[in-house]
Amino acid sequence: MLAIGAHPDDCELGCYATLAYHKNKGDSVHLLVLSKGEAGGPSDKRITETKEAARVLGADSITVGGLRDRMITHDYQTIELIQAKIEELQPDRIYTHSSHDNHQDHRNTGLATMTFYRHVDDILLYESPSVSHEFTPRIFVNITNFFNVKIEALKLHETQNDKYYVRTEAIAALAQYRAFQAGMLTMHNHSKAEAFDLGKLTI
Amino acid sequence: MLAIGAHPDDCELGCYATLAYHKNKGDSVHLLVLSKGEAGGPSDKRITETKEAARVLGADSITVGGLRDRMITHDYQTIELIQAKIEELQPDRIYTHSSHDNHQDHRNTGLATMTFYRHVDDILLYESPSVSHEFTPRIFVNITNFFNVKIEALKLHETQNDKYYVRTEAIAALAQYRAFQAGMLTMHNHSKAEAFDLGKLTI
Amino acid sequence: MLAIGAHPDDCELGCYATLAYHKNKGDSVHLLVLSKGEAGGPSDKRITETKEAARVLGADSITVGGLRDRMITHDYQTIELIQAKIEELQPDRIYTHSSHDNHQDHRNTGLATMTFYRHVDDILLYESPSVSHEFTPRIFVNITNFFNVKIEALKLHETQNDKYYVRTEAIAALAQYRAFQAGMLTMHNHSKAEAFDLGKLTI
Amino acid sequence: MLAIGAHPDDCELGCYATLAYHKNKGDSVHLLVLSKGEAGGPSDKRITETKEAARVLGADSITVGGLRDRMITHDYQTIELIQAKIEELQPDRIYTHSSHDNHQDHRNTGLATMTFYRHVDDILLYESPSVSHEFTPRIFVNITNFFNVKIEALKLHETQNDKYYVRTEAIAALAQYRAFQAGMLTMHNHSKAEAFDLGKLTI
Amino acid sequence: MLAIGAHPDDCELGCYATLAYHKNKGDSVHLLVLSKGEAGGPSDKRITETKEAARVLGADSITVGGLRDRMITHDYQTIELIQAKIEELQPDRIYTHSSHDNHQDHRNTGLATMTFYRHVDDILLYESPSVSHEFTPRIFVNITNFFNVKIEALKLHETQNDKYYVRTEAIAALAQYRAFQAGMLTMHNHSKAEAFDLGKLTI
Amino acid sequence: MLAIGAHPDDCELGCYATLAYHKNKGDSVHLLVLSKGEAGGPSDKRITETKEAARVLGADSITVGGLRDRMITHDYQTIELIQAKIEELQPDRIYTHSSHDNHQDHRNTGLATMTFYRHVDDILLYESPSVSHEFTPRIFVNITNFFNVKIEALKLHETQNDKYYVRTEAIAALAQYRAFQAGMLTMHNHSKAEAFDLGKLTI
Repeated sequence: MLAIGAHPDDCELGCYATLAYHKNKGDSVHLLVLSKGEAGGPSDKRITETKEAARVLGADSITVGGLRDRMITHDYQTIELIQAKIEELQPDRIYTHSSHDNHQDHRNTGLATMTFYRHVDDILLYESPSVSHEFTPRIFVNITNFFNVKIEALKLHETQNDKYYVRTEAIAALAQYRAFQAGMLTMHNHSKAEAFDLGKLTI
Repeated sequence: MLAIGAHPDDCELGCYATLAYHKNKGDSVHLLVLSKGEAGGPSDKRITETKEAARVLGADSITVGGLRDRMITHDYQTIELIQAKIEELQPDRIYTHSSHDNHQDHRNTGLATMTFYRHVDDILLYESPSVSHEFTPRIFVNITNFFNVKIEALKLHETQNDKYYVRTEAIAALAQYRAFQAGMLTMHNHSKAEAFDLGKLTI
Repeated sequence: MLAIGAHPDDCELGCYATLAYHKNKGDSVHLLVLSKGEAGGPSDKRITETKEAARVLGADSITVGGLRDRMITHDYQTIELIQAKIEELQPDRIYTHSSHDNHQDHRNTGLATMTFYRHVDDILLYESPSVSHEFTPRIFVNITNFFNVKIEALKLHETQNDKYYVRTEAIAALAQYRAFQAGMLTMHNHSKAEAFDLGKLTI
Repeated sequence: MLAIGAHPDDCELGCYATLAYHKNKGDSVHLLVLSKGEAGGPSDKRITETKEAARVLGADSITVGGLRDRMITHDYQTIELIQAKIEELQPDRIYTHSSHDNHQDHRNTGLATMTFYRHVDDILLYESPSVSHEFTPRIFVNITNFFNVKIEALKLHETQNDKYYVRTEAIAALAQYRAFQAGMLTMHNHSKAEAFDLGKLTI
Repeated sequence: MLAIGAHPDDCELGCYATLAYHKNKGDSVHLLVLSKGEAGGPSDKRITETKEAARVLGADSITVGGLRDRMITHDYQTIELIQAKIEELQPDRIYTHSSHDNHQDHRNTGLATMTFYRHVDDILLYESPSVSHEFTPRIFVNITNFFNVKIEALKLHETQNDKYYVRTEAIAALAQYRAFQAGMLTMHNHSKAEAFDLGKLTI
Repeated sequence: MLAIGAHPDDCELGCYATLAYHKNKGDSVHLLVLSKGEAGGPSDKRITETKEAARVLGADSITVGGLRDRMITHDYQTIELIQAKIEELQPDRIYTHSSHDNHQDHRNTGLATMTFYRHVDDILLYESPSVSHEFTPRIFVNITNFFNVKIEALKLHETQNDKYYVRTEAIAALAQYRAFQAGMLTMHNHSKAEAFDLGKLTI
């Protein structure tokens, strides 16, 4: 598994509980963060935060690239960074941003990853707080047992703790809604889910 | 305002808090329920439940039609029922099902209402628990102060109280998620929203 | 696994090699054919053909319903037939027609199956010769080793052997193209694939 | 050429100037009207009107079917009527309703025609006053020299002359807008166009 | 209200009559033009023209930014310019380009504005002569009484008066067509409308 | 006719048999290649290869531009290159990349060409091995008699002969599948087709 995020905290928000599910199953999980997130706080601090989060997850590796925050494009510079990691790891599955996202860095990260459509078996597209109305997920992961990993990881991002979208209440509402949408929520449980749009899947 | 639902409880689930907002503003609110919902409980009981809910809302009128539950089509029989009500009330705005819904009665109710596209200023499309991934709402109403009306109205539907989707927790998660999506949820509030897809709007 | 087709030969054309892959893995595979296909040949003969094909596949069961060929609708009659089978088998995954299909029976079969969105983990949508341009598959199954089962099953449909779309050359071209699209075709293999659009998937 | 309309006046509104262009080039033009339009006036009168319009156009034939106005479905009854005409005429090109239309008869006429996707070289989809926002035409015909045929043909529909959409001003505005959209309108001409969505085209 | 255009004359073409309607209602209206339009004429002259147009409208302010004409991107440089204005004015509603536009400056202006989806109540997307077929407006404003403001403002753009799309006839045809589409045009009026696609709306 | 490709070999893969059909009919055919393809081999060699391919086709001219391979954007630099050629040749029809393509150079070539929507009668969008699932062609050209020109032209690209997508088997599978989709493949022929999405068409 390889999870790609534009900034420190993107994978945490989009797919960290699913990654925890993979670790629990015994899959290896690698993280690639394209920028240091310097527009949202001191880059040193942000790198530390995301690395601590990766430790909570038990990630097998984490790489932080040097693309400029808010200036990530979908051209060769971005593609090259992703390509190097794909060639190194040969992942079966990539989790990445959906290109249906109003944030230009997220959109371009999604577009750049899709360049590898034919070279990777599975590409699943996660949501961020800025996904557009065109993000229409139909793949669901039951994360009830892994939700706490996501919350714990996000709390480590102290530079972001004034953002409404890292508030536990907001994250829980989203996760409950996705479980509701998936039909996982019954009368007697408290299911939570992460949801993904489909890039490509190989069965 | 005219709100149209395929069954007793559809308007309650989709737009009742928004209708309460309209009543609070002084708008008149009329309800049209196309079927007696006989597939989900005794029709007499269901009619009573939805009429009690309408009383809680303070609706100006409620009409229950006689289309067959689970057999609502988008042909002339349905259109005629809606047309009669439009001609009687001359509503500026209609709230109705989105046609992006996996339930055939909901889908066909939405399609039948869209027939009146040119004759009504505004058509807003609400969600149900069975909306498909193509329901992508971009119109939001802050219902924080009217959420309790929705919950109270739904509790009156005793025949439906074993359905997971009338569970307060599920409804609250959806309303919080919609507020989150709209940017209404900040660090320090508990905003809730109902969300609508656009049929047509006249400014 | 449950595979649903509108007529005898629809599952064969859309997903038979994938079903053979499932059988090979040890999964159980059940078939539901909604009509006897009487518009395309004598219904007795067509039922016999599809049952013989099911035997070649090694299907665990096959049920042929009595909906009228060319008159399948997406209302309750069709839904009820599918619902009975879902309640009996409790399948984790359903393979069914995409609703993006120019044949009304196929489209309505797809729509009717989607009614069960919340009650089934996975719904994968297969293609037929009449899918519309909106069928845009992104799920691929490598069927190189199971392609012969598909061909053998189709040859048993003697009543259909004047249809160009059961010609081996046409079926092979489609399967090679899907493998090409999936990136499975390399310089040195002869990969074939079946392709599916996404209804819903649970990981 | 075969042009198909749900009611008398549909071909006139959607593609009559284009048909006049075809006649002018020497192509043969046949018309198939699926219903007698009895919901919009006495059926005898309406049949006479559309036949007179066909005479103005110089159509090679016109057939009026007996489907029930407002009750046209996309199932076999409609398909059979279209199929008989296709088998009789073997047309290279069909002009028909877009299925992106809020009027159920139009939508179903469009869906029923698309069933013949593989059997006809070209299927072009015309607009009606009730097309939905999903009708997004990209095929344009310069009808500047044939616009008067359209107007003359529409004026013959006396039973419809209280409909705002047969008003010459409305029809001219649409035709000018389509020319504008196509880039046909320059600083110094008065171009008009009819516009079509693409079903299928063979070059 | 804040209206954003890529070049001098974009707001005029897309939403000036609607802005006049807002001024008439007593709303304040501010304009942000991202570039000086130097590719279409001397920048000094073009700035003067758009400022005179703003005076005709009675705009409360107009700001002309320094992005390079034909080189407007959807990255941080553009976003920053918009963000400064949003922070200064705190507008409830923004009128901006649709991103479904074949002109790269328009498309990128639309994309850049959508970055503020969660921070602004309403984002309405106007059309330009280069919108693509994916621009499918469903929001309509009756501008019959304000159409002359639009025409007067456009006439002030003397550097553009050889463009076919500022021709009064073309603009009137579009406005009549939009009124027709909205159902505003009856047998006895001369209604005109401006039309918008939906970014986001808060009721 | 003008055919535009991002790299040497793109027109060959996407529309060379259709161009051969045009040459056979007596149309003139011009080629514009935006980059030298230096990322896929020595640029001198690649230019020679595509020029030899053009000679096989009998193209009336071929121009190779100097945009940087893998860095083609949809801004003014690209647009200018295309604009110069359009002004020189005044083509009735352009064949170009679809923007629904996962390769950034292809996507941006498509976007840049669409800028000329109003100035060219026809814009047809061809496929490449990297088109995304949103490429949904509905225009078909029967290339059975011209397929050998395509194969011969591709074989001249010796620098690319290790790419799986220039393998004759892959190209033939695609061409047969497109013929199948178009309804050109019958029981008794070996039809092949190239397929295009619609930019714009003028009849």
